[in-house]
Amino acid sequence: MDTLMELLDKRYDQMIAIRRHLHQHPELSFQEFKTAAYIGDYYQNLGISVRRNVGGNGVVARIKGNKKGKTVALRADFDALPIQDQKDVPYKSTVPGVMHACGHDGHTATLLVLAKAIFELKEQLAGEYVFIHQHAEESSPGGAKAMIEDGCLNDVDVIFGTHLWSTVPVHSILYRSGPIMAAADRFELTIKGSGGHGAQPHKTKDSLLVAAQIVVLFQQIVSRRIDPLDSAVISVGSFIADNAFNVIGDQCKLTGTVRTFNRELQQLIQEEMEHIIRGICLASGCEYTFNYEIGYPAVINSTNQTDYIKEIANELLDVDSSVEITPQMGGEDFAYYLQHVPGCFFFTGAKPEGVEIAYPHHHPRFDINEKAMLVAAKVLGKAAVNYHFDYTHHEKHVNESNV
Amino acid sequence: MDTLMELLDKRYDQMIAIRRHLHQHPELSFQEFKTAAYIGDYYQNLGISVRRNVGGNGVVARIKGNKKGKTVALRADFDALPIQDQKDVPYKSTVPGVMHACGHDGHTATLLVLAKAIFELKEQLAGEYVFIHQHAEESSPGGAKAMIEDGCLNDVDVIFGTHLWSTVPVHSILYRSGPIMAAADRFELTIKGSGGHGAQPHKTKDSLLVAAQIVVLFQQIVSRRIDPLDSAVISVGSFIADNAFNVIGDQCKLTGTVRTFNRELQQLIQEEMEHIIRGICLASGCEYTFNYEIGYPAVINSTNQTDYIKEIANELLDVDSSVEITPQMGGEDFAYYLQHVPGCFFFTGAKPEGVEIAYPHHHPRFDINEKAMLVAAKVLGKAAVNYHFDYTHHEKHVNESNV
Amino acid sequence: MDTLMELLDKRYDQMIAIRRHLHQHPELSFQEFKTAAYIGDYYQNLGISVRRNVGGNGVVARIKGNKKGKTVALRADFDALPIQDQKDVPYKSTVPGVMHACGHDGHTATLLVLAKAIFELKEQLAGEYVFIHQHAEESSPGGAKAMIEDGCLNDVDVIFGTHLWSTVPVHSILYRSGPIMAAADRFELTIKGSGGHGAQPHKTKDSLLVAAQIVVLFQQIVSRRIDPLDSAVISVGSFIADNAFNVIGDQCKLTGTVRTFNRELQQLIQEEMEHIIRGICLASGCEYTFNYEIGYPAVINSTNQTDYIKEIANELLDVDSSVEITPQMGGEDFAYYLQHVPGCFFFTGAKPEGVEIAYPHHHPRFDINEKAMLVAAKVLGKAAVNYHFDYTHHEKHVNESNV
Amino acid sequence: MDTLMELLDKRYDQMIAIRRHLHQHPELSFQEFKTAAYIGDYYQNLGISVRRNVGGNGVVARIKGNKKGKTVALRADFDALPIQDQKDVPYKSTVPGVMHACGHDGHTATLLVLAKAIFELKEQLAGEYVFIHQHAEESSPGGAKAMIEDGCLNDVDVIFGTHLWSTVPVHSILYRSGPIMAAADRFELTIKGSGGHGAQPHKTKDSLLVAAQIVVLFQQIVSRRIDPLDSAVISVGSFIADNAFNVIGDQCKLTGTVRTFNRELQQLIQEEMEHIIRGICLASGCEYTFNYEIGYPAVINSTNQTDYIKEIANELLDVDSSVEITPQMGGEDFAYYLQHVPGCFFFTGAKPEGVEIAYPHHHPRFDINEKAMLVAAKVLGKAAVNYHFDYTHHEKHVNESNV
Repeated sequence: MDTLMELLDKRYDQMIAIRRHLHQHPELSFQEFKTAAYIGDYYQNLGISVRRNVGGNGVVARIKGNKKGKTVALRADFDALPIQDQKDVPYKSTVPGVMHACGHDGHTATLLVLAKAIFELKEQLAGEYVFIHQHAEESSPGGAKAMIEDGCLNDVDVIFGTHLWSTVPVHSILYRSGPIMAAADRFELTIKGSGGHGAQPHKTKDSLLVAAQIVVLFQQIVSRRIDPLDSAVISVGSFIADNAFNVIGDQCKLTGTVRTFNRELQQLIQEEMEHIIRGICLASGCEYTFNYEIGYPAVINSTNQTDYIKEIANELLDVDSSVEITPQMGGEDFAYYLQHVPGCFFFTGAKPEGVEIAYPHHHPRFDINEKAMLVAAKVLGKAAVNYHFDYTHHEKHVNESNV
Repeated sequence: MDTLMELLDKRYDQMIAIRRHLHQHPELSFQEFKTAAYIGDYYQNLGISVRRNVGGNGVVARIKGNKKGKTVALRADFDALPIQDQKDVPYKSTVPGVMHACGHDGHTATLLVLAKAIFELKEQLAGEYVFIHQHAEESSPGGAKAMIEDGCLNDVDVIFGTHLWSTVPVHSILYRSGPIMAAADRFELTIKGSGGHGAQPHKTKDSLLVAAQIVVLFQQIVSRRIDPLDSAVISVGSFIADNAFNVIGDQCKLTGTVRTFNRELQQLIQEEMEHIIRGICLASGCEYTFNYEIGYPAVINSTNQTDYIKEIANELLDVDSSVEITPQMGGEDFAYYLQHVPGCFFFTGAKPEGVEIAYPHHHPRFDINEKAMLVAAKVLGKAAVNYHFDYTHHEKHVNESNV
Repeated sequence: MDTLMELLDKRYDQMIAIRRHLHQHPELSFQEFKTAAYIGDYYQNLGISVRRNVGGNGVVARIKGNKKGKTVALRADFDALPIQDQKDVPYKSTVPGVMHACGHDGHTATLLVLAKAIFELKEQLAGEYVFIHQHAEESSPGGAKAMIEDGCLNDVDVIFGTHLWSTVPVHSILYRSGPIMAAADRFELTIKGSGGHGAQPHKTKDSLLVAAQIVVLFQQIVSRRIDPLDSAVISVGSFIADNAFNVIGDQCKLTGTVRTFNRELQQLIQEEMEHIIRGICLASGCEYTFNYEIGYPAVINSTNQTDYIKEIANELLDVDSSVEITPQMGGEDFAYYLQHVPGCFFFTGAKPEGVEIAYPHHHPRFDINEKAMLVAAKVLGKAAVNYHFDYTHHEKHVNESNV
Repeated sequence: MDTLMELLDKRYDQMIAIRRHLHQHPELSFQEFKTAAYIGDYYQNLGISVRRNVGGNGVVARIKGNKKGKTVALRADFDALPIQDQKDVPYKSTVPGVMHACGHDGHTATLLVLAKAIFELKEQLAGEYVFIHQHAEESSPGGAKAMIEDGCLNDVDVIFGTHLWSTVPVHSILYRSGPIMAAADRFELTIKGSGGHGAQPHKTKDSLLVAAQIVVLFQQIVSRRIDPLDSAVISVGSFIADNAFNVIGDQCKLTGTVRTFNRELQQLIQEEMEHIIRGICLASGCEYTFNYEIGYPAVINSTNQTDYIKEIANELLDVDSSVEITPQMGGEDFAYYLQHVPGCFFFTGAKPEGVEIAYPHHHPRFDINEKAMLVAAKVLGKAAVNYHFDYTHHEKHVNESNV
């Protein structure tokens, strides 16, 4: 398959060009109309079969090889973030307050160029290739679920995806079998007391104090209610009781997030939170509304497919450049694909050159090392085209839920 | 009425003798058999009408004056405490572990000698005099309630009583209209979780943590649930979770006290405590038993009778020797008498001579200045025998419940 | 002095006219330029000696009687509040978002008409009369302090003032010797941690949790650190941690109020609050800034002057119409005058007719019963003109600090 | 090496006899004089080189094979527990209040019979065999450390040990590379306030409340201060504030345990605990003493030796009978041996037959399935005698500290 690798090397300039174009024209989640059109037109102009508006702004292209084989899906997301670009580069965002601060422009450029190369080699290839360009990864409920419901995984045997990662050096792959990214939920809690003058607390029900007690007691869920060998986070992000200094308000409002790696624990935490809220409200005669929104599930990589990616990375890179990592507490809606088919989601090192510490994702000065696109394209490409020959154990779809 | 005052001066030695005899032979609450017999015999030997075993070990003597008048009750308590006497005096307790460490011996000697003097002067006196010698003041439910049920207040128009007070100089009277001593309740709380190994908290329900949370949340009752102008105390005295360091116990137990000055607040606090206990237990899946024992109610002095005692004290002592005080958070079952008849309970300074700071009540080295007995006898005696003539406004029985 | 009372009765219509004019033209604290001009012009037009711009927008008029006597000050405040008038009356506020929602318009009308009557009777009167029209009572640091510094109390022997009170029926006076209104302080607390992603709490210092712990622990100050017989309130009014649900913020901010009746307790509470803040911040490695702004001190009425007002109210009204009240936890900068001269601040019932429950002060539908102005004028007027003859014990300036 | 396996099968009855003898004569940690003598005599009578009183009551026997090879240590502990045996079996404990409730009798019988078999076959064997009979595993500081200091590991190349486990079926081996058992620390915390009457909290420093606050705040260490992917437990086992219900005590005392798998986290937790204690004490003016006793470290199995045990178990048992487990939060002083030499500590299923749920370790009705001794003897025996030939990668001593 050297030909594919060679083709990719030659098309590196095009990757950069596409990526920079997208970087200059970012669009927010669920509003990626121009980006979707750009992608759709790209495939159409090449004569590749493409379906637009898949589950929203999603775009799916398919290429058939000449021989029988597996159907392999590759996924790239393409939405941007509501952040003002503060970098000083020629390809800086031209849209005020919107920025590709998570590298999705790079994912898209990688996949587009890889698809073109596969298309050119399709006579030599086995199986079928599905290029899933997903909208709205950054914002729940995300685009993956709707695209799956709209058929993007039909007949697909396996899926691969990667995330460029700005804080890890180029030429490295980070993988993990089993849970690699956490389930990320959101909750919203309103405590309703009854307000009054700050000088007369006994005539009120002090919702601010009740909410403070709840924040304090939430700590016992992680410390006492879950197995010490399990992992979970409950963070209260906001606490708003916006009254005058001498006023006890009627109510206050909290929002926060919960991170877990398996569904049982997720349910346990939701229940324990509600027990604490209900108990503390009872203790003080307050009422509450508690909305717990299940977000993206945990990304759980299949064992065999992860071993496969690791092998491929070791062949393409140095052995020491593929690193097994601990699970990340962040969320990703790639999780939904892995609930349907086996596969592997991995990170590709994309640290800019010459910096000691790279700006992290979602930072106004975030940037990627564009060479990482070539690495990602090679690993994904080799994984896709070799899947039919090299690897015989791939039917097993292990979807463990333990860390 | 100088004669009564003169008689009391002459009988001061007898007061001392009786007090020291009682001091050497203290008996615990509800076990004051010999003391009761001593008191009963004293009256019987003098030919004074006496009833024994009133509501338990109580003794009540009655003396009728020669003229028509009010029926005035005077009360002295006579039980001792489970404390080892550590004083080094000839009249030290002879009973190991039992001691008159609160001055009840002095109260009794005062009243016995005063009764004898009134008996000798009865031809010149109006009205009737009831000498209530009460057992078991130190230990709930106390003797007062049972003695009242057994008729000790029958036909009584007014009641007076005093407590010798070791930390205040002799020749002073401390009074207060309205609440002078708090209602004193006791509570017992058992939190029932489920135990296990300290290394596996998630398999337990950690009753120790739950109890700690309850102690912390109890604070909001006084700080938030009661009127800042009201007074109340909730103190947890004991917290027992007696397990090995690496064991999470099945349950733990707390006891404590609540002090208030009115019934509504007392009820409110009991309810708020239970709300907190129930709420926190719900939050953690624990169960509880909560026993709230209503103790002595607040001692609430009648306004007119307190003014009367103040006037008498001012006549007998220097004007500046009668001092209006703030309410005391301690409890006294004299409260029950005042729920039935008007009256006044006051403190009589009894600080030992030559000491900078006196040992407080219930201390193993506690002692009184015996001269205080003479002061108490005179104030009580003058208040009793003058009540029929001097004072016309005494029918009003004000039983306010506000501080 | 019937003549003064008769004059006031005759001028009731003028009180109403002035009050309604002011009600239609309210001005915020420290911005009462037109109101001050109106008051100044009123005195000037009558030929009464007047000083403008006293300590800011304050206005002070003085009238000398024909005989020797005391110098008596009477005070009325005249600022309005940032509230939208929602009443449906002809004299409704004409200024959007500004309203006399606390009755200061009535205070001013009362004093202006009373001053005119005294001016007309000055030949028959002893002593001197000082009419203190104070700006900015509603907003710390208030106008009283600056007016005193600017000499408004020079040579003054005694001061009286009243507040119309919408929730108490007309023809009643509420008084209290000693503390009648609390010291009202304001605090502002910023907790500085270090922020991060909600999924990685261990890389942050969670200021929101720290602030919640502080709110919970503040409760122990009132419940454990102050004498149960003392009164105090600590209320946290606002708690602002305004981050995204999945973000742990760098800092959060709280404001609140403290109410007390004596300076020692005020200091103790400030210290205990700082101990708790410092301790909890130490426990979690956070930092803080804590600004505790001493507000108006407690209003502490002189004993003799309060007795005097009570007597006058009893003569003018029914005996049962003067009511002794418990201290109010609200604040008033009349407190500053009483730190310099003896006097009495009392409440005058001003409940609108025909309503079951009146709208409270600071409510958008607040109104007063205008008849209350006549009652207030008579009590203040009689107290002022009689002070030289009737009352001989008024030199004693008792400024107790105990409730 | 079938001969060794056959010999063990033949000597199974002897294992039972030895185990039952020990079971009937249990001795507490550090007091195992008779048990140590029994073991020493056993070796002496067989003519095997034995050293007594190694680091206390420890006994170490050594057997040299005929050929050159590695020196392999095997360890069994032999102390019992302060528990009353409540089983109804002929071999029940004869010592009141003392019981082999953790299976150490079985460990000892296993090792003694295995040693005898190895001794009989020594002419055919390579290397040297060290039989470490350790006293005092149940009670910190344990016997392992002292035995190592006394030379029991001199010249040893590798060590193996097992724990019979009553809740897992016979014929199964539970292993884990890296951390398999947690570090188990003990802490003791005394909060010193100043006591007084329950009715006067403001005159005290309420150590009970302070301790409760500390227990509540400890929860934030696990929930906020440690990486969610790490594992740790902080449990407060005892909380003793043993005062009368109406007394605020001078001090109270807590004990508890901390469990971790690596030294950095252990240190972090100790520091965070002290921060919280210091902070809360500062907040309330209390003082404290905090003793944190580092207990047994985590048991961290070497990777290669664990793989080796797994292979041997798979040969001797069914493949599915060796199970990889998650780390256990309990402690074991086998940890110390692994700090000096590579090795593996594993669990051997010992669930009694015919029961649904077995009594757990330390239960008064605990018992083992004696067949487990034969399984343990075979795995340990085969691992020991084969170590010189079969396994070439064993030099690597991986002592990772991450879970």
